[in-house]
Amino acid sequence: MNAEEFRRSGHQLIDWIADYQNHVEQYPVMSQVSPGKIRAKLPAAPPSHGESFDAILRDVDEIIMPGITHWQSPNFFAFFPSNNSGPSILGELLSAGLGVQGMLWSTSPACTELETHVMDWLVDLMRLPPAFRSTSTGGGVIQESASSAAVCALVAARERATEGRTNRFGADGTLTAYISTQTHSSIEKAVRLVGLGSDNLRLIDVDERFAMRPERLAKAIRDDRAAGRRPCFVCATIGTTSSTAIDPVRRIGEICRAEGLWLHVDGAMGGTAALCPEFQPMFDGLELADSYCFNPHKWMFTNFDCDCFFVADRASLIRALTILPEYLRNKATESGAVIDYRDWQVSLGRRFRSLKLWFVLRCFGVEGLRERIRRHVALAGELAEWIRRDPRFELAAPVTFSLVCFRHRGGDEPTQRLLDALNGSGKIAVSHTRLDGKLTIRFSIGQTNTERRHVEAAWQLIRQFADA
Amino acid sequence: MNAEEFRRSGHQLIDWIADYQNHVEQYPVMSQVSPGKIRAKLPAAPPSHGESFDAILRDVDEIIMPGITHWQSPNFFAFFPSNNSGPSILGELLSAGLGVQGMLWSTSPACTELETHVMDWLVDLMRLPPAFRSTSTGGGVIQESASSAAVCALVAARERATEGRTNRFGADGTLTAYISTQTHSSIEKAVRLVGLGSDNLRLIDVDERFAMRPERLAKAIRDDRAAGRRPCFVCATIGTTSSTAIDPVRRIGEICRAEGLWLHVDGAMGGTAALCPEFQPMFDGLELADSYCFNPHKWMFTNFDCDCFFVADRASLIRALTILPEYLRNKATESGAVIDYRDWQVSLGRRFRSLKLWFVLRCFGVEGLRERIRRHVALAGELAEWIRRDPRFELAAPVTFSLVCFRHRGGDEPTQRLLDALNGSGKIAVSHTRLDGKLTIRFSIGQTNTERRHVEAAWQLIRQFADA
Repeated sequence: MNAEEFRRSGHQLIDWIADYQNHVEQYPVMSQVSPGKIRAKLPAAPPSHGESFDAILRDVDEIIMPGITHWQSPNFFAFFPSNNSGPSILGELLSAGLGVQGMLWSTSPACTELETHVMDWLVDLMRLPPAFRSTSTGGGVIQESASSAAVCALVAARERATEGRTNRFGADGTLTAYISTQTHSSIEKAVRLVGLGSDNLRLIDVDERFAMRPERLAKAIRDDRAAGRRPCFVCATIGTTSSTAIDPVRRIGEICRAEGLWLHVDGAMGGTAALCPEFQPMFDGLELADSYCFNPHKWMFTNFDCDCFFVADRASLIRALTILPEYLRNKATESGAVIDYRDWQVSLGRRFRSLKLWFVLRCFGVEGLRERIRRHVALAGELAEWIRRDPRFELAAPVTFSLVCFRHRGGDEPTQRLLDALNGSGKIAVSHTRLDGKLTIRFSIGQTNTERRHVEAAWQLIRQFADA
Repeated sequence: MNAEEFRRSGHQLIDWIADYQNHVEQYPVMSQVSPGKIRAKLPAAPPSHGESFDAILRDVDEIIMPGITHWQSPNFFAFFPSNNSGPSILGELLSAGLGVQGMLWSTSPACTELETHVMDWLVDLMRLPPAFRSTSTGGGVIQESASSAAVCALVAARERATEGRTNRFGADGTLTAYISTQTHSSIEKAVRLVGLGSDNLRLIDVDERFAMRPERLAKAIRDDRAAGRRPCFVCATIGTTSSTAIDPVRRIGEICRAEGLWLHVDGAMGGTAALCPEFQPMFDGLELADSYCFNPHKWMFTNFDCDCFFVADRASLIRALTILPEYLRNKATESGAVIDYRDWQVSLGRRFRSLKLWFVLRCFGVEGLRERIRRHVALAGELAEWIRRDPRFELAAPVTFSLVCFRHRGGDEPTQRLLDALNGSGKIAVSHTRLDGKLTIRFSIGQTNTERRHVEAAWQLIRQFADA
């Protein structure tokens, strides 16, 4: 495919995507295929000689599309959103087209400098702690996901607690970490991965709003110290996965400061709300965090992957993650005047992901982003009110951002039937969790183009299935 | 940006990229900016209200482009290639446009099934061990990078060696791992990350071809056992970073089998050569590996990120990495009939990366890919021959794939001057390493569009600077 063929096929694919955006509501939201059905339509071997792009695009329509669950449908209310938007798609396209490696400043200076700049923009815009700015002691970096960010935070915490001895001699089974019963599973995965062991992870109880009880955290730390363990890491969450509960970050942070523990704050979903001044109080206490992340690839209209990870003290992160072999040495690195983001992440290679964030911020404008966030939060409030007024349903948790958790008052069985009916209808997608041991439907509002009419129609559907 | 605005801006950006492809040779290959110069041109805050895509594209030209090192120039010979191509860019674009999450089979069945299918294609095409096929005991998965693949391999090895006890109780500082002095730094980084400790990593000596000495490996394992350590992991490389040396995988694999160690084979760069039957003998012994990876995002014209990671026994990988919280439970997973790739990687989220691999395989066709690989290998052979005949230079290592390592016979000083002159010229980019303690220029041929004329012109330039 030469440049002119690329031009032709590229126009064709752009049109295909624009048409998809226009028609996305016509598809069943959740793919209804059964296992193996897509594979069965694919040939046993790739072609010996090149095929036309037309043929490929035809197979996308005929083979791939029936196996797609439409995360970009405004009727997608499952899990958390994983948004895209026009500008983010184009940012990703430009990143692929330039095809640069941003592992070192010197391997493409713009890739590093734009990322640093946009991350600093976000610190100011969201009123994040000034220490997170690259011009202070910390800085921000784009990670693949909140899971990757957690791994980096945990390794930095581990090395700070052991003064670099774990990197050198290995873990010794004495370090302990703390999360709540509601913390995302990626933290437990990270605790295993970095060699701490899940038996050394304490699951702290939550209150009736599903927020971590700080006094229980303090007690767990005391108990561990008394037993000769070495507490090193706490993860608090602003917007938990099950119910978007908000842990009391300030009180947790005070405990961490007093005890010398690393505080990581996971704002994967909730974080984007800090774009709006009126939601910034929900982030109270963040200046006590050693690290923080949120995902523009969830609710900030920037396609996966784009997790923004900030640290207050970049030196401890870099110390934990750096290795400099001869083949990566260069004058810019040795000058100390540049950031080499390979030292801020697990992988060596990295692509130019800040382009899509830059495109999104500029095309939407700050007010354009805020308008959408406010709309989603308001819609969640409305839906919660409708649910509250319907005697068949109950809310299962407070609505903090744009997730509504509810269930049928008849218990798990009618709730399960409702869940299956909704997802089987093809008209909307929702997901589930358990809160207080009870099956709960998660209705998450946040797709880029979700408007009032979509939530209204979904509510009609919920009532209709509950009637049946 | 609505669908029609996206269509217009998308066409504009496709044209921009096609023009870039046409003109890429006109840019200085390595960016010549100094630290901070790009940032200084960016405004202190993002705009309040949305800007036009025209304005953004203008800033790409004026602000970003001077800070780009052109990895997609056919005159880029530094590091290893990090290729793209028309079909891969379009595959990435479609992935961004669909914006699906492939964490579970059920969250978009096509995303999982196409990936499994394409990975199986590669097993057949490259004559990889049949156990790597998803229809056997193993399977393939796309990872972000060889670094991520190494982390997964190492955790699987660690858990197999300790029967899952490390995930539960933490590492205990007794496990040991083995690489050569030439192994990529990502393995040492992974060894630290997973809590083994770099003091428990043995760097095995290499022979005069920079390949691991298996008898030294066997001795190191014996010594460790005698000292009460628990050897668990070996990484062999097919195409090391400094010189593309090939470790004796069969002999290393026999030792690993006899001793019960996990063998991971890193073919990040060399791996793509297995597309050609005549290079498949270089992969002899791979059926003794527990895991293997290679990077289509290096030499297979598929833009970063796309690392293909294969395991012979998927159960040990999944056991080491799985966690199933309530909010991810679903009927397809419980049926056991599907693959959930979140259990094959560190992150939970994942995008539809197999699209670009599928596009590349179909648009190039297998013969189209082979033709380019053969051309690059032949060009490296020619360049090596020219160097051999010039009394001022010496080859620093055998040429195995498409990397030529050479130096000035006058020693480090003239070699450094030549390196600086070449990169400062803007006409080509090369990088460096140290082999046998001596500064060495790495001339890596592998950009998608590199032809004989580019290598000839580079050789003229090398001779010209050496004359001066």
